[in-house]
Amino acid sequence: MNYTTQMDAAKKGIFTDKMEDVIERESISKEVLLEKIAQGKIVIPANIQHTRLKGRGIGEGLSTKVNVNLGVSEDCCDLEAELSKVNTAIDLKADSIMDLSTFGDTQKFRKIILEHSPVMLGTVPVYDTIAQFGNDFSVLKRDHFFQIVEQHADEGVDFLTIHAGLNLQALKKVRNNPRLTGVVSRGGSLLLAWMEKNNQENPFYDQFDRLLDICEKYDITLSLGDGLRPGSLADSTDAPQIQELITLGELTKEAWSRNVQVMIEGPGHVPFHEIATNIQLQKKLCHHAPFYVLGPLVTDIAPGYDHITSAIGGTLAGSAGADFLCYVTPAEHLRLPDLTDMKEGIMAVRIAAHAADIAKGIPGAIDWDHQMSQARANLDWQTMERLAIDSEKVRDYRLSSLPKKDSSVCTMCGDLCAIKTSNQVLKTNAG
Amino acid sequence: MNYTTQMDAAKKGIFTDKMEDVIERESISKEVLLEKIAQGKIVIPANIQHTRLKGRGIGEGLSTKVNVNLGVSEDCCDLEAELSKVNTAIDLKADSIMDLSTFGDTQKFRKIILEHSPVMLGTVPVYDTIAQFGNDFSVLKRDHFFQIVEQHADEGVDFLTIHAGLNLQALKKVRNNPRLTGVVSRGGSLLLAWMEKNNQENPFYDQFDRLLDICEKYDITLSLGDGLRPGSLADSTDAPQIQELITLGELTKEAWSRNVQVMIEGPGHVPFHEIATNIQLQKKLCHHAPFYVLGPLVTDIAPGYDHITSAIGGTLAGSAGADFLCYVTPAEHLRLPDLTDMKEGIMAVRIAAHAADIAKGIPGAIDWDHQMSQARANLDWQTMERLAIDSEKVRDYRLSSLPKKDSSVCTMCGDLCAIKTSNQVLKTNAG
Repeated sequence: MNYTTQMDAAKKGIFTDKMEDVIERESISKEVLLEKIAQGKIVIPANIQHTRLKGRGIGEGLSTKVNVNLGVSEDCCDLEAELSKVNTAIDLKADSIMDLSTFGDTQKFRKIILEHSPVMLGTVPVYDTIAQFGNDFSVLKRDHFFQIVEQHADEGVDFLTIHAGLNLQALKKVRNNPRLTGVVSRGGSLLLAWMEKNNQENPFYDQFDRLLDICEKYDITLSLGDGLRPGSLADSTDAPQIQELITLGELTKEAWSRNVQVMIEGPGHVPFHEIATNIQLQKKLCHHAPFYVLGPLVTDIAPGYDHITSAIGGTLAGSAGADFLCYVTPAEHLRLPDLTDMKEGIMAVRIAAHAADIAKGIPGAIDWDHQMSQARANLDWQTMERLAIDSEKVRDYRLSSLPKKDSSVCTMCGDLCAIKTSNQVLKTNAG
Repeated sequence: MNYTTQMDAAKKGIFTDKMEDVIERESISKEVLLEKIAQGKIVIPANIQHTRLKGRGIGEGLSTKVNVNLGVSEDCCDLEAELSKVNTAIDLKADSIMDLSTFGDTQKFRKIILEHSPVMLGTVPVYDTIAQFGNDFSVLKRDHFFQIVEQHADEGVDFLTIHAGLNLQALKKVRNNPRLTGVVSRGGSLLLAWMEKNNQENPFYDQFDRLLDICEKYDITLSLGDGLRPGSLADSTDAPQIQELITLGELTKEAWSRNVQVMIEGPGHVPFHEIATNIQLQKKLCHHAPFYVLGPLVTDIAPGYDHITSAIGGTLAGSAGADFLCYVTPAEHLRLPDLTDMKEGIMAVRIAAHAADIAKGIPGAIDWDHQMSQARANLDWQTMERLAIDSEKVRDYRLSSLPKKDSSVCTMCGDLCAIKTSNQVLKTNAG
């Protein structure tokens, strides 16, 4: 191969198979795709070892992508259950899966996912470091962290969340600017605990080059984690969060100098009126690297409904330029999600991504809506069911309550159906 | 009484009991409240016959209110079931109920609601005209419509949806500017059918003064309906919609000249990036009368999830200035909602209203979030449950999945809980 990473290929003008995959799914020209990958504005997370992968692009001008989290933990360590989550994620059209396992035979689970899955796989190596070596931070050495990164890379993981910006300077900012909810990033808080215990700098910040060596070798995309994302509206857009973002922008440039692809992870809990500012800040400080957001959740008061609070924030974030949305389920803040939670989370985030794509003018995005509305205007229930984001739910709802008189309408308005009346008055039934 | 309507009282500087009710719930001064009611920027829908009512204000500077629709129809004509919906709506903190009954003994049902309910009640008299007189438009006369308006007024209904802007000129605009989904307002389409059949102008437009006589007498707030709201993204912000809005602005001034309070109803299906424009247009064309929106739904493709598509649009609408959000349930476009649908719809719209209140800076709105996040920082599950928008759901979720080791955390992260780790590292546990 005459290139290392997709970014290296793009800089050399080489059009790769993975780029071909992207072109097939998106309305973007080869030239623009090459240019934006070279500039770092688009990434294609595609580990050279992940042979089953169909490449997907994330970034400027492309449709908003969605990620699904899952994984085995001490409280939920049923491998079979997690595998059915993998299948559900793929069936429900997730663009990527993050395996956040923290317990058990994590290597075996990843191997199965990678053999099974044509979608991108991401991980957080800090979790697995603890799964494999325990969480006694006096025993854990920086080499352990890198050993796990190398392991994931060699297995074929496409992107890694690394909280490299959570350095001693950032920790100082947290101490100087007390927060309501401290550090709510699991990986970030674990790294901080390690740093405190060992009185050392964050290994991934300190030895960022060592990380880049691995990423370059396997074409791992770095997903630079937001260890200081706000965990409450009160902590949103504060000094620690923005300090870390500045560092992530610097690290982005270093990564790019080695042709390593980069995404930036983002908040978190953010009031609706601060979301656009957050997107703009990230795009400026991180040189238009793709933005991967968790939420944002627009209120703290709705545990049990955080798929909705994050769909609200995610739509605004996406329409303002966020490129990749992580799903949030109704179980967020409460428990590990089950399959039903998961499905609700995926539907909510896909709605947000689609609504954002319409708002940011992704070519063709609104066509789906036009087709659905044409079916509605025709009172064509079969086509409505087929086109719906969740055909099964539409079928179940309709069958549960069929109108008594006229099967062309629904029980919401019954015989007084506005579409039916309007079609008669206007004689514009487009059927 | 030395005033007719709340608006008349405000213009005369009289501070009414209903205004007192509003002051108790909101962070607004007496002077500002009086001024804004006099200007038409705030309404207090409060029929003088609705003695059980606690007054609530809708409009500029007040918290965003939410409405719940229910009602008996031919397909769902169980009075008991509808009454349990009334109770659910009140329990779940709806600010108003709209009874959209189209079948059966509608007067009896309204009477029960009005005797029962301290929240505002709204109706759409056109529906009840058909319920009481049938839908043979060759038999139905304009007097029938007014007879029902008078009946509702005398019973104590606080606000009436009247599609007075849907005149012959608007119909012409629909014909000249063909739409994908025609007229999707039920009341609007019925009026149009009547106008076509009888070759007459809309009675409520034609005899708007006759309507105002009734409204002034009982202090009915007019909710000027958007008969031409878009039923699809394709039809959003089109000529017919805006033509009707211009007419509604003119009617608003006429109503105000009689001291009749007015709200304007709004879309509908609107792409996310057109929502702010819609709010601004309404506020300008209708002279800052309160805006009551149904949704907006930001995509057409998610039947079964329209509580989410409308929570997304509702948050943006509210933050941009909409004052009153009508709930949309998962059953929208599919069937009459059941109790579960209803609950999901209420939670979603309340989340949207609250997130919007934070964004538009309603004093005190964000305090709820701060309290919740303080409880989260303390890992205080009892307080989290108590403060949550749906305590029952939080309790059920938590009990379904308790952590094995440490009951202070949840199974989402288990022993690796970021809050726990962070509290240890930062020693800032605020408990």
